[in-house]
Order: sequence, then structure tokens, then C-alpha cells
Amino acid sequence: MLTDLYTPSVQHSLDLAGIFVFAISGALLAVRKNFDVFGIAVLAEATALGGGVVRDLIIGAVPPAAFTDLGYFLMPLVAAGLIFFLHPQVERINGAVLVFDAAGLGLFCVAGTTKAYEYGLGLTSSAVLGVVTAAGGGVLRDVLANEVPSLLRWDRDLYAVPAIVGATMVALLIRFDELNGATSALAAATAFVIRSLAMRYGWRAPRAWHRRSSSAEEV
Amino acid sequence: MLTDLYTPSVQHSLDLAGIFVFAISGALLAVRKNFDVFGIAVLAEATALGGGVVRDLIIGAVPPAAFTDLGYFLMPLVAAGLIFFLHPQVERINGAVLVFDAAGLGLFCVAGTTKAYEYGLGLTSSAVLGVVTAAGGGVLRDVLANEVPSLLRWDRDLYAVPAIVGATMVALLIRFDELNGATSALAAATAFVIRSLAMRYGWRAPRAWHRRSSSAEEV
Amino acid sequence: MLTDLYTPSVQHSLDLAGIFVFAISGALLAVRKNFDVFGIAVLAEATALGGGVVRDLIIGAVPPAAFTDLGYFLMPLVAAGLIFFLHPQVERINGAVLVFDAAGLGLFCVAGTTKAYEYGLGLTSSAVLGVVTAAGGGVLRDVLANEVPSLLRWDRDLYAVPAIVGATMVALLIRFDELNGATSALAAATAFVIRSLAMRYGWRAPRAWHRRSSSAEEV
Repeated sequence: MLTDLYTPSVQHSLDLAGIFVFAISGALLAVRKNFDVFGIAVLAEATALGGGVVRDLIIGAVPPAAFTDLGYFLMPLVAAGLIFFLHPQVERINGAVLVFDAAGLGLFCVAGTTKAYEYGLGLTSSAVLGVVTAAGGGVLRDVLANEVPSLLRWDRDLYAVPAIVGATMVALLIRFDELNGATSALAAATAFVIRSLAMRYGWRAPRAWHRRSSSAEEV
Repeated sequence: MLTDLYTPSVQHSLDLAGIFVFAISGALLAVRKNFDVFGIAVLAEATALGGGVVRDLIIGAVPPAAFTDLGYFLMPLVAAGLIFFLHPQVERINGAVLVFDAAGLGLFCVAGTTKAYEYGLGLTSSAVLGVVTAAGGGVLRDVLANEVPSLLRWDRDLYAVPAIVGATMVALLIRFDELNGATSALAAATAFVIRSLAMRYGWRAPRAWHRRSSSAEEV
Repeated sequence: MLTDLYTPSVQHSLDLAGIFVFAISGALLAVRKNFDVFGIAVLAEATALGGGVVRDLIIGAVPPAAFTDLGYFLMPLVAAGLIFFLHPQVERINGAVLVFDAAGLGLFCVAGTTKAYEYGLGLTSSAVLGVVTAAGGGVLRDVLANEVPSLLRWDRDLYAVPAIVGATMVALLIRFDELNGATSALAAATAFVIRSLAMRYGWRAPRAWHRRSSSAEEV
């Protein structure tokens, strides 16, 4: 029984932590785009909850958790308020924010894969939805801010790979009946470490072969 | 019993009126963006129905009302046809359009909050979905037109605040068991008046504190 | 009984063909936007599956077919891999790609209308969802790539019209109880031919009347 994986309160705390750090990244982009206080709050909410809401709509878990758990809704507002007052300080510790974001990435790809499987999806689809949960909020953030999604750009450090690795590990653990609290934590930690290394060493994914520079479009 | 609030025909007429004015705002943006007649129709439909469709997907009311009531689908086409032929005249009475849009904002935040509560969501989530219903169509309109959503920009008059006030009033009225036709109308009128005053006096929401102009990005 | 229309394997093969050509168009745009290999894969998946996923969420067919049929998920990855290695060759045969895309348009507007009707929607809503199925993926592709959707632009050849004609034909065939394999194929072929003629002769839809060039905004 997968729901025995973690005690509910531990799972809930991890979810709130992931939501908080994603909300910080949304609020920071809103400040950089010169949005007002409501724009900051909306972008914080969308970044933190967007991936999970899309996953829940797809697996048929309606209303999505974001609309049944008041903490999920309030946490991004706390992050938005913090950034509203303290954004210069937070931007100065940008490294710290990215570390937290990497932690959110790890937590969400594991939680998303597990929840999709609990709702009856196959292993591959569950892993895909784990990646959607982890990366979807950031894509929604960038679309709302009218920017090309970071996830798609070649000049950004790897983001999809750690989520794919983490979600695939969870799917394989389920397949071999080895998913438990410890192995879940290992999958989340693996995604976190790969993302951290990618940022540390500037790992990037290749672009299409034979990409002619003449046709390069600056994005 | 909340469904006794209004006679169905009154509620339906108010919905159609709100849909019409939102569709006008979508069609006008499409003309300004130089879209063709189908682009005008698509943007009118998306602006008018987008917020309600998202709300219905989240609360599990599928298929959404926009796909079960033919009037909801046809009304934006009427608005698109009107703008196709008469856009110079309509733009000249832009003030009138904005007044109608403010009325749509008031009607939709009340109707959205009420419907979400009827589907079993909590008071806070219902109010959030009231705001989503009122503001979501405009966000979808701007995303499809590849513009930064008005809702998020600091250089636009308050739009979120009137929706939040109206939706919160409805939630409080439900909480204290005082929601009826008269108090619903009062909530819608309050949102309408706040939005109208915001446009009249150019009320804007603050940006993040200590916003350094050097880092300002023109959006 | 509509599900007797085609043998399942024929329908499935047609779906996979449509998914493949739409994925090619997404992957090509990703290469043109200079995205990395994951951006190419994400845009291929979104273009190929986006319209169908939105349709399935709206009609309540969750989880959407894209998440229950592994072939639907793998096909865009094949297209992405092909474009990753062979994009110069594929771009050189751009005409061929557009012909396949027109075929996908025809197949998807027919399949989308039929599926929506099977899930109990009215004829008009079913036709609308047929158009959403055929055109939605392309809109999602353009939004994710931060471009104005082709569907809305006046300077692109007709795309909505063939989808509307095909979907309307299916709705009328259902209405008069004449939908079968042959008439479905005729509807798909009609959409395909109209789209092909529109590309061949540069057919475009009109913009709003009295469009003053002074207010034209380059998009």
C-alpha cells in the first residue's frame, strides 16, 4: 500500500516545503518583471501549485489538492509577502534559492509519480506526471510572465534530466516493489544532487545536430 | 439552498451579459493585434468562457457549462461579429466597454464563488475560484495574444482587488447564512463600484518595496 | 453505435499518424527556436497531444487517452529524435511536412468530434471540440514557444476553416444518422483538401473591416 510510504504529516511538510520554494521562484520573477503585489501573489501561486493542479486534473483527482488544503494555498502567499518586502536580500542569496528549488524539484517528481500511480495510471504515465508535477509550475510561471520557458531553453542548466531521473527511479522502485520511505528519499535526493551538479558545473543539454548558426534565432 | 438564490432565467441572463462584455474585450484586443476573423472569434470565446471553464474543470463540473449551453457558445460569436464590423465605433466608446467589463467582473466573481461552494469546496477555495472565474478569461486572452497579462502589470488599474472583495463578500455571506438575491447583488455591485473607481482615479497596486529602478525591466 | 465506425486498429493507426505529423511540426519549431533536446521533446509532445488532452479533460474522459496508451506518448519522442538528427533534411521537404500536417488536421477534427459526441455532448459542442482537438495542439505549441499562435494570425493560410468544415460535416452526418467509415473518411478528406488548397493558393481570412493601417501592430 503506497499510502503507507510516509506518515501523512511528514509528506505534508515536504509538500509545503516544495510549494514554498517554488513560490519564491515565481515571486522573484514577478519582481524582476516589475509586476504589482497581486502579480507577485498570482505568479507565486501559479508556480507553486500549477504542476500539481495539472497532474490532479489529468488523473481525475478533483478538486485538486491545492483547493482542498488551505495550507497549500496560503504558503505561496507567505512566500509572496516575504519577497515583496525582502527581495533584495533574497536575490543576494540567489544561490540558496536555487538550492531550495532543486529540493522542490526532487520532492515533487517523487510525490507526483507516486500519486499518479495511486490513481491507477501505468508506470510510464506516472513517471511522466511526476515530471509534469515538478516542471509544470515553472513552465506556467514563464508563460504567464510572457517569457520562453526556462525548461525549453538550451542556455539554461539541466532541469528536465534530474526530474526524469527521479521520476524514473520511483517508477522502477514501484515496478520491483521496493518503494518505501527510504528509497523514495533516495530518488528525491538523486534528483536534487543531479540538479545541483548541473548548476554547479553548468551542464547543458545538446541542441539539434548540425544546427547552423545562420538560422539561430536569439530567444 | 443556494440554487434558490435567483430564478434560473435571471441568473442565465446575467451570465450571458457577463460573457458578452468579456467577449467584446477579447475581440477588441484581437483587432488591435491584427488577427483575422477567426482569431477574433477564438479570442472572444477564450476571454468570455476561459475563466468559467477552468473553474468547472477544477470543481469537477464536466462538461463545463460553456459546452452544455448553446447560448454561452453563441454569445461570443455575436460579440466577435459586432466588433468585426463596428470596431472603430466601439473603440470610440471604449469607456462604455470598460464599464461593461467592470459589470462582468462583478457578476462573474459572485457567480463563480457561489458555484464552487455548491460543488462542495471550502469557503476560501470558493472565493479563490470566484476570482479565477472573473479574471481567468482575461489572463487567457492576454496569453493567447502573446502579451503580459494585464492582471499582473503594475501599470494597469486595479483588477484583482474588486474581484477579491466581491468573492470574499460572497464567502462571508455564505458563512453567516445571509446569501440571497439582494446580498449577491450587493457583492456584485461592490466589485463593480471598486473597479469603476479604480479606473476613474487610476488606482494602482504597489510594486515590491525598495524596487531599484536600475533593475526595472520594461514590460 | 458510433464505436463500430472503424475497426479499433485502423482508428489507432490513424491517430498515431496524426500524432506523428503534429509532433514533427512541434519539433521543427523547437529547433528553429534553438531549444535543447528536451525542449524539442516537450514541444513535440505538447503539439501532438495537447488538443486531445484538453478535449478529454472537457468531456470528462480522464485520464486522457494520451496517458493510457503508451504509443501516443512514444510517437512524439520518435518524431523528436528524427528531427534532432535530420532537421535540415526535413526542413528541405517542408512541403511534405505541411501535407502531413494537413492530414493530421483532417483526422483529428473527425476523431475529436466523434469522441465528444460519444461522451454525450451536443452536436455543436462536439464540433467545437473537434476543432479544439485539431487546432489546440498547435496553439499550445506556439504559446509554449512564446509566439503569437499561427491560428490567430491573419498572415497565415487558413487553418481554422478546414477544421470547422470537417467537424461540421461530422456533426451533420451524426445528425442525419449517416456517419460511417466512408463518410468519416470523406469529412477528413474534405478538411485535408481545403487546407491543401489554402496553402497552395495562399487563401487567407479577412481582418476586421475598416482596419486602419495606422493602428496596425506588427505581430
